[in-house]
Amino acid sequence: MRALFFDVFGTCVDWRTSIRRELRARGLPEELADEWRGLYQPQMDTVRSGAREWVDLDVLHREALDRLLAEHGLTVADPDELTLAWHRLDPWPDTVPGLTALKQRFIVAPCSNGHIAQGVNLARFAGLPWDVILGAEIARTYKPQPEAYLASAAALKLPPAEIAMVAAHNGDLKAAQALGFRTAFVPRPTEHGPDQTRDLEPAGEWDVVATDFLDLAEQLSGGGEGGVLAG
Amino acid sequence: MRALFFDVFGTCVDWRTSIRRELRARGLPEELADEWRGLYQPQMDTVRSGAREWVDLDVLHREALDRLLAEHGLTVADPDELTLAWHRLDPWPDTVPGLTALKQRFIVAPCSNGHIAQGVNLARFAGLPWDVILGAEIARTYKPQPEAYLASAAALKLPPAEIAMVAAHNGDLKAAQALGFRTAFVPRPTEHGPDQTRDLEPAGEWDVVATDFLDLAEQLSGGGEGGVLAG
Repeated sequence: MRALFFDVFGTCVDWRTSIRRELRARGLPEELADEWRGLYQPQMDTVRSGAREWVDLDVLHREALDRLLAEHGLTVADPDELTLAWHRLDPWPDTVPGLTALKQRFIVAPCSNGHIAQGVNLARFAGLPWDVILGAEIARTYKPQPEAYLASAAALKLPPAEIAMVAAHNGDLKAAQALGFRTAFVPRPTEHGPDQTRDLEPAGEWDVVATDFLDLAEQLSGGGEGGVLAG
Repeated sequence: MRALFFDVFGTCVDWRTSIRRELRARGLPEELADEWRGLYQPQMDTVRSGAREWVDLDVLHREALDRLLAEHGLTVADPDELTLAWHRLDPWPDTVPGLTALKQRFIVAPCSNGHIAQGVNLARFAGLPWDVILGAEIARTYKPQPEAYLASAAALKLPPAEIAMVAAHNGDLKAAQALGFRTAFVPRPTEHGPDQTRDLEPAGEWDVVATDFLDLAEQLSGGGEGGVLAG
């Protein structure tokens, strides 16, 4: 066990609360946050399928914003700046101390659908102490396409077996596990708000299930390299 | 001014002292360090010219080591591990405090001929607080090919004019300047040992000349964004 890859949106940062705040500050309805995020998967599907060439999340987020504003008959003075709200997302309370502890022993890197510039800006905003920014842009396709994980592992010159994927989403872990990565599930039960129904429980044979990043650091600090992931 | 790109070998780390130490520990002549480094530019030329497909520095360093050992009739028990000595290089005394100060204001990233895995391992060994690892591997060619600089800038979604290249090598700055980057020269007068003759003085119209990274941080901390680089 040499490295930990992290999903970011939802797993490391509370995008919903942060985006609602940015909408509210502009007099827009907070509920748009969920609709905005809801367009994300179908948008990425067009890239995953190859129907559309690689474009980054700034492009996808801006297109989705324009569509939502039009549908609701709304306007905003600074659509570009609002789009960059996705670079300004608050970490969960345990994220920064947890990553800091984990970094003592492991290479820590995002393996996110965010692009490199977004990852850098978000890390500086939220204080995420990454060793390196990896993820979708390295592969020019989106998770859960295998290339997004494998190109990130190749950039570290490590085999998947020496890397654990950490995510609050069972689907992300399932894709990584199928490629030989180790897996750690850290639920974020309010990612989608107080009435969240998805991803509340582990839905696979994950190597580790932790309550938060501090618990994850504790579980991985046991004897040998990688604690519960050792050997 | 949003970001600073750093040359690494020589500019951030004292490769010569570090490699000599690793050679000495294996009973090999320290002088091999300079010969090993000396093969570096002609090796990279084969990739720059397109004659050879992209290979990373681990491959080039290992080939060079094998050649030198054969020429000198020497052997070593752990050639792979010795090759990875290029991932274990000491920083100059001002490097870590200087980068830490500069990171307060600017995105700091290597734009090195090292690959991503080497950049990560070196950063963890030497304590280099990078925001992101950029450089040759992003472009799959070596500096001073324009793509190595331009692909790194594109990864940040910043124009070259908002980035300064920091290097102890005039040639590196010349290539970056021609592409529209700002430039900062920080001489490292003992990079090549006590009798160094090259790169002792600035040999171009660089935007900043600093004695070390702490002086650079001081010069860039003046009024406005970027101190002497403002406007």
